This record gives sequence, C-alpha cells and structure tokens, in this order.
Amino acid sequence: MAADRSGRFISVDWGTSNRREYLIEDGAVLATTRDDRGILEMAGAGYEEAIAGIRAMHGDLPVLIAGMAGSNRGWREAQYVDAPARAEDVAARLLWVEPGRTAIVPGVAWRDPAAPSVMRGEEVQLLGAVAAGLTPPTALLAQPGTHNKWVEMGDGAIGRFSTAITGELFALLRGGSILSAQLGGEVEGGAAFREGLRDARTKPLTSALFGARAAGLLGYRADADTADYVSGLLIGADVGGAGVEGREAFVLSDATLGALYLAAIEELGGRAHLVDTAQAFVAGMTLIRSLTR
Amino acid sequence: MAADRSGRFISVDWGTSNRREYLIEDGAVLATTRDDRGILEMAGAGYEEAIAGIRAMHGDLPVLIAGMAGSNRGWREAQYVDAPARAEDVAARLLWVEPGRTAIVPGVAWRDPAAPSVMRGEEVQLLGAVAAGLTPPTALLAQPGTHNKWVEMGDGAIGRFSTAITGELFALLRGGSILSAQLGGEVEGGAAFREGLRDARTKPLTSALFGARAAGLLGYRADADTADYVSGLLIGADVGGAGVEGREAFVLSDATLGALYLAAIEELGGRAHLVDTAQAFVAGMTLIRSLTR
Repeated sequence: MAADRSGRFISVDWGTSNRREYLIEDGAVLATTRDDRGILEMAGAGYEEAIAGIRAMHGDLPVLIAGMAGSNRGWREAQYVDAPARAEDVAARLLWVEPGRTAIVPGVAWRDPAAPSVMRGEEVQLLGAVAAGLTPPTALLAQPGTHNKWVEMGDGAIGRFSTAITGELFALLRGGSILSAQLGGEVEGGAAFREGLRDARTKPLTSALFGARAAGLLGYRADADTADYVSGLLIGADVGGAGVEGREAFVLSDATLGALYLAAIEELGGRAHLVDTAQAFVAGMTLIRSLTR
Repeated sequence: MAADRSGRFISVDWGTSNRREYLIEDGAVLATTRDDRGILEMAGAGYEEAIAGIRAMHGDLPVLIAGMAGSNRGWREAQYVDAPARAEDVAARLLWVEPGRTAIVPGVAWRDPAAPSVMRGEEVQLLGAVAAGLTPPTALLAQPGTHNKWVEMGDGAIGRFSTAITGELFALLRGGSILSAQLGGEVEGGAAFREGLRDARTKPLTSALFGARAAGLLGYRADADTADYVSGLLIGADVGGAGVEGREAFVLSDATLGALYLAAIEELGGRAHLVDTAQAFVAGMTLIRSLTR
C-alpha cells in the first residue's frame, strides 16, 4: 500500500450493523469514530461516498477495510484466503478497490468439507492478538458474539476454526419463540447462568430449552432468572463443543460477554484470559498494512 | 359427564393455531370439522360463542375439549395432572366449564425440578394410543411437531417425558437467521437429510448450523439441499437425546414428518413404528369420556 509521508492510514472495521474507523500511526490510534452504517444500512450502494466522507474526517490517507464490506452482501467481494493463513497470506490477497489507496482485507476459509467454516473481519483481530503479544502464537482463541469463532492459532497462523451461532440463537429465542415472554431479564452470569452451564453438559440443547419454559410454568425458576439460565445453556453448549478441558483459552471480547465465556471455560475445566478486541484489531491492521508497503 | 341418550359427544382438539372437532359415537367418528381458529386467533375471547357454534354444527351434545384452550393463554386454565398419570387421573381432574355439558381435559406435568416438562393435548393421544392397542402399554412414544414430546409410557400411564423444540427451532432459523436464504428448499429426507442425521451424532448443534452456511458459501452443498440437511441436524439432535438405540419407538405423527423421525430413529439404532394421531386422539377422548359418566 502506498505509504503517505507520515505513515498514517485509516482502518475501517465494517461489520453487518456497525462501522468503526481508526486513524492509526505507528500502531497507535490517533482518533476513532463509529456509527451504525453497517452493510445492512448501506444495502450495496454509496460505498465510494462513504469512503470519501471517512477521508474528509480523518485525512486524505490510505484506507484499509476489514469485515463484511468484503462479503457478497457488501461493497466488493474479497475472496477467502485458505487456512492455515498467516498475515503475509492475507496481506498478499488484499482486494484493491483503488490501487495504492483503498483496499479490502479478505476473509479466511477453513476448507474441510466435513466441517467447513468462514470468517470475515475476525482474521484481523486474531493475527493482531499474536502480533501484539496479547496471546501466544500457538493457542486456542475464542471470539464471542452473534457468531462465536473457536480458532486454533498455530505458530502465528490461523489454523482450524469453527463457528457457533450462539448469540444469534439467543436473539432468535428472545425475539419470537415460546420462551420470549420469559427472556426479558438480564444476563448477568449469576446462579441461574451457572445452572445453565451445568445442564448444557448433560442435557440435549433443544429439550433443555423447553425445560426452561416448563420450569417457569411449574414455579421452579423465576422468569427474571430465565435469560441468565438460557444464556448459560447456549454458552455452555458452545464452549462444550470446543474441548477446553485442561487448556488455556484466550477470549477476544468486551468485558461483559467475555466474563460469561470466562466463567463457562472455567466451569468446563479450562483456564481463560480476556483479550482486548480493539487493541488486537489495531495491531492486526497495522501488521497487514506493514506487509503491503 | 352427563351421557346424552345416544352416547354421542363432541371432541374438540383446540391447539395454538388450529381447531378440530369430532362428532363421536361408540368410539367411531361420525363427522369432523376443522378451521384455523386456534387460541391465538381467539385471543382469550369468544369461547362461549365458539362452543355454541360447534353445537349448532354437530348437535346439542356434551363437549370435551383438549389442548391449549386449557392453558393460561386459552379459555380457562386447567391445572396440570402430575405424571405418572393414567386416564383415570386425567378424567378425575377435568375442568368443568358447564357441569355435565362442557369440560376441558387437563394437561400433564413431569415435576422433576432438574428436568421438568409439561404437555397439553398430547396426553389424549398417548392414552388413546394405548387404549386402542396402537402401542403397547409400556413403550417409548414420540410426538413430533413444533415441540416434540418423548414419553415413557408405563403400564398404560404417562411417565417421564421431555420436550424438544425441534420444529420451532427450524421455523426460527428459516424465518430470520443467517441461514434463511439457504432454507427455501424442501425437506424430503434425502441424502442431505441423512448427512445431517450423521453430523448430529458428532458435532455440536450450534456449530454444525453455521457449518451449513459455510458449506453453501464454499460450494460443498447446494442451497436446495440445505433445508434437508438442517432438518437432519435438528431431528438428529432431538432423537439423539432420546436414547432410542436398541429400543422400539412409536411415533405419533402425520406420514411426512413421521417418515423423517422413523429414518432418524433407525439411523440411531432403534426400531420405529408410525401411529395415526387422529385415531389415537379419538380413542383417548372416548376413553376419558367413558370414565366420567
């Protein structure tokens, strides 16, 4: 990527529902902005104007974009890089929208026909977490959210990974299911959450979910505790599929959701560490940019 | 229940979305009607008028109602009978709306605080299936649908049971999830369905669901086959939680959904039989009525 004289560039973390910009110089964030103009809001159009607007805010600088803007529902589709994938592989496969000026970071694919998965945006945090020394180069990483990634990093490369639709399932159940009326409470990682974690180890998920309804009807659990319990069931099922027992796991997340995953990992016999996602993202974008100059 | 001279009575199977009436005499159905006036459509009101309308159609006869009309979202709440529950227990606990004329069959509760469940309407089919000789008095029964019940019948009594929200989860995923665009195809129990059944044995459900998305994006599975695959995953998870290996299971279902459950039970090492639900319902209502005269 063409370096501007100062070494500054703009990073855009362009997701489904949100967008966040970072003005970066030498790995440090000089300014940041965020709004809700995710790709759903863009609906395929107006990306050029949006980029011009970002440059008007942060300077006429190179722009490096990661996330869903590079998907087939975004601006331009950046083809997946195959895992195992190093930062060099990702940097070599940038999609240049305007050569030297504007590029999109490709996602990463795990092409195992028996257990395929894809990511778009998460690769930057993963590579950055290792580059910044926030995680060891060989480690198990998790990225909770709507879709949680479990990633085996190997010597700094993104290796085998899988994705659980944990957050989306919770939203679907809360939004319009037999459980909706009981899911108005807070998720706070309390006693009901831990009960959900334990039940996730022994009960099939789909019947444990109905059990949460029955427990409310029969007076075994207050509705106010049901969201906490169901969150425990879902996160417990998610973590239970990851084989954390006896392992260290690094959770890239905000503190609130991160605390729930840390509790789940420890309940299942692992040791867990919380990693700052913004720090990892900035380090990842800085690394990728340094490899394209 | 006061017998009318002919022994005739009217049975109403009053569900969430539908209602079906049977004019019954000596266990035989003389006439049946159905419409979409389930309890959601009723919204708590107009039940008296609806019952009057049913009598206008089928005769001024005793009316015995089963299903969600007896729930706290229906007409009058009929308190659950505790399992183990025999037909006599259910008959003794009818909720009489108009003594001798109009009654609601109570649901059944499995009051295990560690794995509670409830049913409302299914109890009639279960008791009827045994009474009519459609299933043995001691057997494992399944009742697929929005919420599938797995029931251990013991010597004719409804014993331990659990409920899986299999059908509801499929509808939620099809209606508004990351998978929606791929779930427009038919569920037909084909090769993709059987692949889903097998994957359900080895993969966590929430990550296998995202795997279905990735398999589409990466070209491993046609979108047209994805509904079949996801149905296999969900039904496989459902049946996998029921411990059917080496057992006989009796599936109370229509032929289409029943065929999927039969395939799943056989894939998991059980032997499965399909049981006609309308026949079981009529036998159950006939039995319950005979116990109240």
